[in-house]
Amino acid sequence: MIDKSKTLQTTISLINSKVKFDGWTEGNKPVSIDYIPPVGDSDGYTSLELLLLSLSSCLGTALLLFLRRMNKTIGEFRIEASGDRRQEHPTCFSKITLEIHLQASDTTVAEVEKVIKMAEETYCPVWALLKGNVEIETNVVIAT
Amino acid sequence: MIDKSKTLQTTISLINSKVKFDGWTEGNKPVSIDYIPPVGDSDGYTSLELLLLSLSSCLGTALLLFLRRMNKTIGEFRIEASGDRRQEHPTCFSKITLEIHLQASDTTVAEVEKVIKMAEETYCPVWALLKGNVEIETNVVIAT
Repeated sequence: MIDKSKTLQTTISLINSKVKFDGWTEGNKPVSIDYIPPVGDSDGYTSLELLLLSLSSCLGTALLLFLRRMNKTIGEFRIEASGDRRQEHPTCFSKITLEIHLQASDTTVAEVEKVIKMAEETYCPVWALLKGNVEIETNVVIAT
Repeated sequence: MIDKSKTLQTTISLINSKVKFDGWTEGNKPVSIDYIPPVGDSDGYTSLELLLLSLSSCLGTALLLFLRRMNKTIGEFRIEASGDRRQEHPTCFSKITLEIHLQASDTTVAEVEKVIKMAEETYCPVWALLKGNVEIETNVVIAT
């Protein structure tokens, strides 16, 4: 078994005659990955959607850790991510917007924004890998 | 319905008292996302594994498209990705290795490497988003 704090491994395997893949890591259910027509059949996540899930969950994990360390009580927690694509190649994101929704009666938007800043600078590995290549905007919405 | 060639949207939602999320886009089965102990319970993909799946599938899609345009007949196609993590924050990848396995009797390693170069430079949006922030090595293995 590999030490995931040091190395991570994944596999994708083509499963049709177009561009549909199963992707997986040991112990997890395969993820269906596909591209939009006409190249693919939209029968799975696109690569860039997986990137949004990667960034959202990485930031979400860092935020939950730090807010809990500050003794904040977090109820519901959700991140809606949206990425605007360039219309020329490479058709990557020109901008990513992350809307962070959390339920917390003892936390202010300013406190969450401070933790986001720490994540951006140091504690969110996926953000570190995207730095300088795409604008990332965050919005915080707190429900009590 | 959104036009995925212009905008992509995803949601993650916390589903336990640690850092386990369901992540999804409309029309796809949710992906379980979790971090390794003690922070999480390893009950899902880690954010960095999703990033490897994102990069692998993006490169895989570009390779299949271009090789088929060159009238190559591709049978089995698989990419094994491996990422070495930094041991200080941010604990992102210092290096990603992609091992591309394909079955093709009419294709040389040099031809695949040429297409990889085109993907790196122009046609792989996820690679474009990581450029300059991590070393990405590719190895091509062809079975006939």
